[in-house]
Amino acid sequence: MTEPATTGPFPFSAIVGQDDMKLAMILTAIDPGIGGVLVFGDRGTGKSTAVRGLAALLPPIKAVAGCPVNSVTEADVPDWAQVHDHSIVEKPTPVVDLPLGATEDRVVGALDIEKALTHGEKAFEPGLLAKANRGYLYIDEVNLLEDHLVDLLLDVAQSGQNVVEREGLSIRHAARFVLVGSGNPEEGELRPQLLDRFGLSVEVESPKDIDTRIDVIRRRDAYDRDQTGFLAEWHDADMALRAQIVTARDALARVDADDSILRDCAELCIALGSDGLRGELTLLRAARALAAFEGDPAVTRDHVRRVAPSALRHRLRRDPLDEAGTTTRVTRTVEEVLA
Amino acid sequence: MTEPATTGPFPFSAIVGQDDMKLAMILTAIDPGIGGVLVFGDRGTGKSTAVRGLAALLPPIKAVAGCPVNSVTEADVPDWAQVHDHSIVEKPTPVVDLPLGATEDRVVGALDIEKALTHGEKAFEPGLLAKANRGYLYIDEVNLLEDHLVDLLLDVAQSGQNVVEREGLSIRHAARFVLVGSGNPEEGELRPQLLDRFGLSVEVESPKDIDTRIDVIRRRDAYDRDQTGFLAEWHDADMALRAQIVTARDALARVDADDSILRDCAELCIALGSDGLRGELTLLRAARALAAFEGDPAVTRDHVRRVAPSALRHRLRRDPLDEAGTTTRVTRTVEEVLA
Amino acid sequence: MTEPATTGPFPFSAIVGQDDMKLAMILTAIDPGIGGVLVFGDRGTGKSTAVRGLAALLPPIKAVAGCPVNSVTEADVPDWAQVHDHSIVEKPTPVVDLPLGATEDRVVGALDIEKALTHGEKAFEPGLLAKANRGYLYIDEVNLLEDHLVDLLLDVAQSGQNVVEREGLSIRHAARFVLVGSGNPEEGELRPQLLDRFGLSVEVESPKDIDTRIDVIRRRDAYDRDQTGFLAEWHDADMALRAQIVTARDALARVDADDSILRDCAELCIALGSDGLRGELTLLRAARALAAFEGDPAVTRDHVRRVAPSALRHRLRRDPLDEAGTTTRVTRTVEEVLA
Amino acid sequence: MTEPATTGPFPFSAIVGQDDMKLAMILTAIDPGIGGVLVFGDRGTGKSTAVRGLAALLPPIKAVAGCPVNSVTEADVPDWAQVHDHSIVEKPTPVVDLPLGATEDRVVGALDIEKALTHGEKAFEPGLLAKANRGYLYIDEVNLLEDHLVDLLLDVAQSGQNVVEREGLSIRHAARFVLVGSGNPEEGELRPQLLDRFGLSVEVESPKDIDTRIDVIRRRDAYDRDQTGFLAEWHDADMALRAQIVTARDALARVDADDSILRDCAELCIALGSDGLRGELTLLRAARALAAFEGDPAVTRDHVRRVAPSALRHRLRRDPLDEAGTTTRVTRTVEEVLA
Amino acid sequence: MTEPATTGPFPFSAIVGQDDMKLAMILTAIDPGIGGVLVFGDRGTGKSTAVRGLAALLPPIKAVAGCPVNSVTEADVPDWAQVHDHSIVEKPTPVVDLPLGATEDRVVGALDIEKALTHGEKAFEPGLLAKANRGYLYIDEVNLLEDHLVDLLLDVAQSGQNVVEREGLSIRHAARFVLVGSGNPEEGELRPQLLDRFGLSVEVESPKDIDTRIDVIRRRDAYDRDQTGFLAEWHDADMALRAQIVTARDALARVDADDSILRDCAELCIALGSDGLRGELTLLRAARALAAFEGDPAVTRDHVRRVAPSALRHRLRRDPLDEAGTTTRVTRTVEEVLA
Amino acid sequence: MTEPATTGPFPFSAIVGQDDMKLAMILTAIDPGIGGVLVFGDRGTGKSTAVRGLAALLPPIKAVAGCPVNSVTEADVPDWAQVHDHSIVEKPTPVVDLPLGATEDRVVGALDIEKALTHGEKAFEPGLLAKANRGYLYIDEVNLLEDHLVDLLLDVAQSGQNVVEREGLSIRHAARFVLVGSGNPEEGELRPQLLDRFGLSVEVESPKDIDTRIDVIRRRDAYDRDQTGFLAEWHDADMALRAQIVTARDALARVDADDSILRDCAELCIALGSDGLRGELTLLRAARALAAFEGDPAVTRDHVRRVAPSALRHRLRRDPLDEAGTTTRVTRTVEEVLA
Repeated sequence: MTEPATTGPFPFSAIVGQDDMKLAMILTAIDPGIGGVLVFGDRGTGKSTAVRGLAALLPPIKAVAGCPVNSVTEADVPDWAQVHDHSIVEKPTPVVDLPLGATEDRVVGALDIEKALTHGEKAFEPGLLAKANRGYLYIDEVNLLEDHLVDLLLDVAQSGQNVVEREGLSIRHAARFVLVGSGNPEEGELRPQLLDRFGLSVEVESPKDIDTRIDVIRRRDAYDRDQTGFLAEWHDADMALRAQIVTARDALARVDADDSILRDCAELCIALGSDGLRGELTLLRAARALAAFEGDPAVTRDHVRRVAPSALRHRLRRDPLDEAGTTTRVTRTVEEVLA
Repeated sequence: MTEPATTGPFPFSAIVGQDDMKLAMILTAIDPGIGGVLVFGDRGTGKSTAVRGLAALLPPIKAVAGCPVNSVTEADVPDWAQVHDHSIVEKPTPVVDLPLGATEDRVVGALDIEKALTHGEKAFEPGLLAKANRGYLYIDEVNLLEDHLVDLLLDVAQSGQNVVEREGLSIRHAARFVLVGSGNPEEGELRPQLLDRFGLSVEVESPKDIDTRIDVIRRRDAYDRDQTGFLAEWHDADMALRAQIVTARDALARVDADDSILRDCAELCIALGSDGLRGELTLLRAARALAAFEGDPAVTRDHVRRVAPSALRHRLRRDPLDEAGTTTRVTRTVEEVLA
Repeated sequence: MTEPATTGPFPFSAIVGQDDMKLAMILTAIDPGIGGVLVFGDRGTGKSTAVRGLAALLPPIKAVAGCPVNSVTEADVPDWAQVHDHSIVEKPTPVVDLPLGATEDRVVGALDIEKALTHGEKAFEPGLLAKANRGYLYIDEVNLLEDHLVDLLLDVAQSGQNVVEREGLSIRHAARFVLVGSGNPEEGELRPQLLDRFGLSVEVESPKDIDTRIDVIRRRDAYDRDQTGFLAEWHDADMALRAQIVTARDALARVDADDSILRDCAELCIALGSDGLRGELTLLRAARALAAFEGDPAVTRDHVRRVAPSALRHRLRRDPLDEAGTTTRVTRTVEEVLA
Repeated sequence: MTEPATTGPFPFSAIVGQDDMKLAMILTAIDPGIGGVLVFGDRGTGKSTAVRGLAALLPPIKAVAGCPVNSVTEADVPDWAQVHDHSIVEKPTPVVDLPLGATEDRVVGALDIEKALTHGEKAFEPGLLAKANRGYLYIDEVNLLEDHLVDLLLDVAQSGQNVVEREGLSIRHAARFVLVGSGNPEEGELRPQLLDRFGLSVEVESPKDIDTRIDVIRRRDAYDRDQTGFLAEWHDADMALRAQIVTARDALARVDADDSILRDCAELCIALGSDGLRGELTLLRAARALAAFEGDPAVTRDHVRRVAPSALRHRLRRDPLDEAGTTTRVTRTVEEVLA
Repeated sequence: MTEPATTGPFPFSAIVGQDDMKLAMILTAIDPGIGGVLVFGDRGTGKSTAVRGLAALLPPIKAVAGCPVNSVTEADVPDWAQVHDHSIVEKPTPVVDLPLGATEDRVVGALDIEKALTHGEKAFEPGLLAKANRGYLYIDEVNLLEDHLVDLLLDVAQSGQNVVEREGLSIRHAARFVLVGSGNPEEGELRPQLLDRFGLSVEVESPKDIDTRIDVIRRRDAYDRDQTGFLAEWHDADMALRAQIVTARDALARVDADDSILRDCAELCIALGSDGLRGELTLLRAARALAAFEGDPAVTRDHVRRVAPSALRHRLRRDPLDEAGTTTRVTRTVEEVLA
Repeated sequence: MTEPATTGPFPFSAIVGQDDMKLAMILTAIDPGIGGVLVFGDRGTGKSTAVRGLAALLPPIKAVAGCPVNSVTEADVPDWAQVHDHSIVEKPTPVVDLPLGATEDRVVGALDIEKALTHGEKAFEPGLLAKANRGYLYIDEVNLLEDHLVDLLLDVAQSGQNVVEREGLSIRHAARFVLVGSGNPEEGELRPQLLDRFGLSVEVESPKDIDTRIDVIRRRDAYDRDQTGFLAEWHDADMALRAQIVTARDALARVDADDSILRDCAELCIALGSDGLRGELTLLRAARALAAFEGDPAVTRDHVRRVAPSALRHRLRRDPLDEAGTTTRVTRTVEEVLA
């Protein structure tokens, strides 16, 4: 991928604006443990484009050639996957779409009926969660999925394991992926429990500035008319971002966070009245990922301040006496608490 | 098809009035990438007649003889289609009706139960989306279809690929077609997300002018009583339109759109407050197709002005303070912005 | 059938009153292209009796002996019907009841499970629509059927073809029949789309006149007590009506309608504000059938005037400012427009 | 049955009071063409007891021994019933309960799965309607049955034929029975269409008179404690009633009804505003059955007067300006019209 | 069972208080024809404990060893039960729990799929109703069962026969049991029809008296800690009660009820306005069982008075003008009528 | 387990605060007969962490090696479990998660389809309840489970037996486990019946104290970064708690509770107006477990006082006149009654 490809998704670097969304996706690429990203906002603002572009610029993963869950080593290949080719190959970071109408069977995997009928044995046929291991799972309009399916996806995303207890199967396999969901706040709300289980959330909107909009159309038009040329043009920018992410991943374990930072996180969450402690923990991890991304040796109050809206915005209780939006409330509180 | 047929659908050229609908259909025949056409309006205004007539006048497509998805070359024939006859033949542009009561299985294709039972193998039986490849898919009263089916159809229409992830099948095949849907605004609304994914929309109504109505009845009566004679009478007009469309398809790639045109598109969408950027992009493509249709070397402000209602009308938010209909609002804004 | 039968349905000619309903049925017997008949009204007013009686007096159809869709010639027999006896025989005009509880499978036909299991082949088992070809399909309380079934029936009735795209079947066969539905306006309304697709509609009510009622009871009592005698008594009247219908069918193609008639139809529909153009077209066809029935060489304004209520009554929008019933509004407008 | 049985249902003659219900049941035993009986009223008033008692006192029917539909002669045995024993035997008049939870399959009959699997042939397995042929079908709380099932039952009861068009079966067999349904007016109403299709309706209530109630308890207690003795005690009364019914059946065809009677029926129905003409026809048949029961050679105004409430009560429209119950309205109108 | 068991349910005699519930259960043990017992009231008041305790103290039943419906003699064994061991053995009185989630199949019995598949024959697999024959069927929270299941259970309980008309089966077997249901009046009401079909009803509540509550806890604690010792301690009391019930069963047929008693029953029911006559009949049977239990040769007014609340409480119409509870209304009316 | 493990769940002893929840879990570990624990409260407060941590510190259970229900001795192994290896091994205390989307089949066990098809025999395939025997069953958001499933689980938890009466199976096996459920009081309430069947309930909330929150984050961060080191650090604390629980289990049978304690329990429940007697019995058992845990020879009023909120809080009726929360009402009443 060091040579520009002749065809491929729209380059991540060529996306105009939408900095919050791009940063949130980069942070979860550095530390997938932060959890999924929930993108609220207008239609046609490039959510799907961004996740596809990011995956395309990340370095390929090394995986057992024939393994349906992209196992790192032969030892990790699950029993039920009858893999014969154990050579290690490079594969692009997977991006899996959850198509509307996909059944739970197809998502988590199911009994392989064909093998059951022809060989009389219970074999497992892996689903989309297996394909998404070590990559991204993208769901457009997550608010239209049935609750039990979203719930299941978040459980898997958090535990990193897909557990199938059905039809006499008792299967588990690694399923570590970053869940990226888009939602429209005008079409029904997500339950607080679900919101809380997304790591970061961002709000996107169509650019209001006319020159920005023209930029968007011009770049899109250029990409539509000459994909190869456009990809070549943006190759260097994408590769530079890849290098920065790879460096940050290595640095992450060494980034320090002292007690004053923990106190900042806690005070902020208390001031905002966010439920539970997932807020603090996510805030800390996101701030550490940002420090790593920027090459800083330790988390500073500034890192915390900058990731706070994404990490906390979706964990606030509705406050009927405060007409400000959640983003405003987070920002205001950050200013007061971390003055 | 250069000789008049003795039987066939009502000729496209013989349709009285309904210029907006006819133009929208012609534009998508020139550039299918514009997306589907949504026709709002009264019953009995010839929506189905128009789509059938248009397909009948388009030049036949060249396709692999036995291919269930009308592949252009032998290389494009999907694996699962066990095609033995690879000769290239001419077929009429397909028009597929989505009959009421068609199941999702029949639309997207499904496991071929017969082969599964008799040969013990998982074969794919293509559905209506395969049949519609390179042609038209017509849905009467799209507002009565279940949301998940419309959604699925628009996804396929946009991506050009039918992806089937069910029953242990993991199949994809080309499915590029123009979706034409009709709807009645009095019977429940479509979700904004769905509206936004149709490229163009037009409003049709019964002609109010008595002579026009008499024309309609007279032509229909003539067609019903002497189909062969009627088809012969309108053959030349249809062939002339075919030639114009073929020429426009070739010219399309060469039609220029400079920055002032992009700015016009952007300013118009901002002034109308349409969400996202699909509005601008569609407006640009439709204006370019119109320029090609009229033999112009570049898109002009006039082209933009004329396609704006069809491209934007269905993307406006409801404005409770503005009692004007959406068409009026688009027209008025076009006059102000592109004065 | 030139000899009176000893058993049979109540004779059409012996039905007391209900002239509108009887005329509507006769017109569709002359020109089935007019479309179905929808009968609104009180219970116990002989709707089912009328359709059965009419079918019994029509001349028998000539059809291929073993053909499940009553094909006219051997060439018309569909592939899937494994017919061995191709001799042409006379069969009574079919009248098929759609029994409550009939499944969609039984209506449109379905995969023949028996053959699938025993011969491993996909055979088609025709349904009630096949049986009804070239005859009548009667549905009591059409307003109680599920919308998708009514829709399907009207589509078939209009196109004259039954298209089955299910379970891997892709079958089509002729299904030309006149749909007769009865409905009770007090039990939920039909959607305007559905109403518009019925050709004619009539309103029936119990006779209010006591002597008429006594006539009804006396004739019914006579029929119940001595069916053979009663059939003999009314045989000549039925045969005379048959002859008149047969003559009208032949004459139909020669009945003229000049522009002033077309203008009358159009002006009437505009004045009534009926949506679309199906109103005009049906009005013209019904008037022409009436002219043929009465032996007139051309359609006159009087023919239009007399069929207008049946052809237009069910196509009016509700007018909240006009308290008159739809029949009154049609009649009043006819008087004004065709004065 | 001329010897008293040692066990059996509670004797019809021993039922205390409830004269309306008993008469309605007797009239339908004389002329089953009158249609079903609908019994409204309090719980525990012996509806089920009455129908069982009546069937037990009727003369046994003569039927082909092995025939599942109790055919009168060998010629009537349906094709699908593989009957080997064609001797004519006596069977008690069947009384079939429609148990709650019986499926439509079990009611109308269904494909015999066992034969289908073992012999590969489509055999019909008759249902409860076959069993009930020539007898009674009793449904407790008819208002709790699903509409489509009641509808189906009334269709069969009226046509005398059970038509099965499902699962590739196309079966019909005689199904002539009197439908007796009980309902509680407090638990949801029956649709007017359904009401209209019951021949007679009666209202029952618990006796208010204390001595009558004691009689009821005493007789029930006696029956519970010494069934054989009790049956013997009432044997003669039951046999006398049987003889009277048998005589009436023979006489029925000879009972005259002149025009003044028809006029009475019609005037009564017009005065009551009952929809349709089923009211008049039922009234005439019930009056004729009553005349036959009482040995009269012709129907008189008195017969009409006495059966009018049962024949018409359930066919009245609700009149919001008339607070009187339907029974009162019928009675009052009878007095005025047939004064 | 004359030796104390070492393990077993909590002894019936050791239940503290709850005299109404205990008496109602004893009366139905003496005369199962009284019908089921419905227990309203607080949670944790020992309903399930009581029914289990009562069954444990009743004498064992004598039944055919291998019979699935506990038949008394070899002649009673149903055809479908392929019983080989016809010896007569003693079995404890069955108590069957209807577990939440039991399907109708499991309750009434169903086609034995295993035999159908392996032997190609239609065998019946009996359900819980077969197991419960000659014993008790206990349903906790009867108000949570679906209506059709409760209905079915009461039909069977009343008729003593389980009739299965499904899946081509036509099976019947004895199913005589006392149905004991518990319900919470706060969670939705039972339909009056259902209430009326229970023989007796009682209200239980937690004891309000502190010493009673301590007794309950002390006995329960003693039973939990030393079951064997506790069972031994209460063995004599249970055996005495068993003897009294056995004696009463024999005496029952000889207990007299003269006309004044019948009049008392009728007057009471009329005064209370209970619908139908089931009230009187149940009242009489329960009073006779009480007389038998107490060794009295005839029913007295006092017996009637004491069982009236249990027999009638659940048959009263709601009286909006009388704020007193139903128990109070019964008691007050008993005092007035049987003064 | 006496050596610290290198990987494992977060140590129970390292959980900061949440003393009520931890004590409730410890008490049910000492006496599982107390029943399940219901945890109300905020998200992210470590409910799942606590149950996993507790199970990890409990001593391993000794069980038959191959037994699917962890039977203690060979004699306890159920018939249907074809166990070949009867050696006794040590297994960790099982903790079973009820995953969202698990079917009733998978919970209670079901017919083993594979064996049924290949061997033609009805074998039972145990479910999650079998796995959970002698351990914990954890359900997150118990309020989102369907009522019938919760009901079933509580029935099993109380009876200690899983009874499967379906699909022709009649299976029972030991299923003794402590049910731990979490719920969010804001998302719909549980029915009082269900609440009453949980033994103890606790309320948890995020710590409000900032230093506590920092402690939580610090410990979690330490565990995430160096699991092995963290487990080693807390090993001694966990082992000390294990020893205390083991000692308490032995002592439990010898802990005395005299009449004054019973009276305290009863008076408290009467004063609080808790329904039924489950409150008193649970209170007594929990107090006895607490005494055992603290090495006391007898239950004292102080033990009762301390467990009262957990044992009674969820059994109170809502009191519209008392605005205090249920915890406050219990505490206040304890102070008044046990002053």
